[in-house]
Amino acid sequence: MGTTQLESVQEPKYWHLKTVLSEALDSDFAVGEVLPNERDLAARFGVARATLRQALEQLELEGRLQRRRGVGTTVAPPRVGVAVANAQHGWSGDADEAWQPVECTVGAAPAMVATALGVDAGETVHVVRRIRATQGQAVAAELLYVPASSVPELSVIDAASGPARARGLLRELHRLELDGQDRSVELGSARADDAKELDRLPGAPVLVVTTRYLAARSTVAVSVATYRADTCRLTFGDSGALEISHDAQERKAS
Amino acid sequence: MGTTQLESVQEPKYWHLKTVLSEALDSDFAVGEVLPNERDLAARFGVARATLRQALEQLELEGRLQRRRGVGTTVAPPRVGVAVANAQHGWSGDADEAWQPVECTVGAAPAMVATALGVDAGETVHVVRRIRATQGQAVAAELLYVPASSVPELSVIDAASGPARARGLLRELHRLELDGQDRSVELGSARADDAKELDRLPGAPVLVVTTRYLAARSTVAVSVATYRADTCRLTFGDSGALEISHDAQERKAS
Repeated sequence: MGTTQLESVQEPKYWHLKTVLSEALDSDFAVGEVLPNERDLAARFGVARATLRQALEQLELEGRLQRRRGVGTTVAPPRVGVAVANAQHGWSGDADEAWQPVECTVGAAPAMVATALGVDAGETVHVVRRIRATQGQAVAAELLYVPASSVPELSVIDAASGPARARGLLRELHRLELDGQDRSVELGSARADDAKELDRLPGAPVLVVTTRYLAARSTVAVSVATYRADTCRLTFGDSGALEISHDAQERKAS
Repeated sequence: MGTTQLESVQEPKYWHLKTVLSEALDSDFAVGEVLPNERDLAARFGVARATLRQALEQLELEGRLQRRRGVGTTVAPPRVGVAVANAQHGWSGDADEAWQPVECTVGAAPAMVATALGVDAGETVHVVRRIRATQGQAVAAELLYVPASSVPELSVIDAASGPARARGLLRELHRLELDGQDRSVELGSARADDAKELDRLPGAPVLVVTTRYLAARSTVAVSVATYRADTCRLTFGDSGALEISHDAQERKAS
């Protein structure tokens, strides 16, 4: 059915090449294998290099290929499902937590975050920096903005900075009874600091997950997390075990 | 605080240019305004055209710019929040539904969908094609896969094809009591048929939302929906009213 519709739509050359390349990846290459260089590939498929490059970009968007400096273009492993669940806010501070705190500072929240938190523009808030790792690889970097009013007991009892301070702050947050969370997901490009943590170049595509934590009818914290778009599939939901890979579907459908 | 970290990281030239351009967009341009051509822009900022192009690509990823054939590069309006809520499965078939059915056919489900549905590979299922519009613009295109066993009463009572058939099938689905939904979000590139519906070129970045609908402990339907990544911010959650725009944050933070 999809096929019929596809045939009736005019396909650009790079799109057709993408489909052909995708099939070649399935049949002729293993995960991690380095692809031939662009010149050889273009010759093999009888296309211009500009066309080839467009097709490679599509496959990179879909998570089929990885391009790294000094390594070249390799066949990517399937994307990793990363749970962005409502129940898990990851504030218990346990060492086996997916999110590891790396820093805790004080700074002005970006204007839109300040508005959501109900603090004045320029007013300083706590800022916790956390990194999320899956299978030994950093998949996401987060800035968590917490106004002083959300953690009134903090300053008295905890370390002044660093991961210890961050854990102390998260413990305080953990004591709050949350009413719920609002969340949004959108495409973005990695900031230089996030890109470094995620082993990507600045500007690499990321999925930006913004979460507003609600307690007693007000926003007690706002998190802005950037997930690697090349390797992550964000999962939401009731059983938390979604085993459907879009890539695999595309492959079989095409 | 972010600033301190940023300064300690080496920034590529296009990244710096992106920040400068972003500020220029805020101060000198209105939404919808056409940007000068690449040659003039490169001259104005004293950079090579390749650098300029990279910076423009970043801004396009972040939804700040739109590039359209025959129009040029324009300043994009803020992204539209599109609710991907757990409660709303949109199967009531009302005319004011966000999703409008356009077709209903029968076909083999992609292998991964077939597995999730518990049907044999190659076994045909109902396939409903729907388009979601927001503010008069198509923002998402969906294929909804439904095995015959999920809608046993369908064939007897409804039209043979087209939107009427689709509405009949959705009404049948609506009668099922759902236990829950599993959902994943990942980056993808638009298939030719989806691209046409969404007024984009094939291969344009899209957010692919795959949803598994569960009833009586089995999967009764699987939906694969592609959302325009340039104009959409997907929202999830309890109040459904997340008003934080990542773009605006980036703008103020940089």
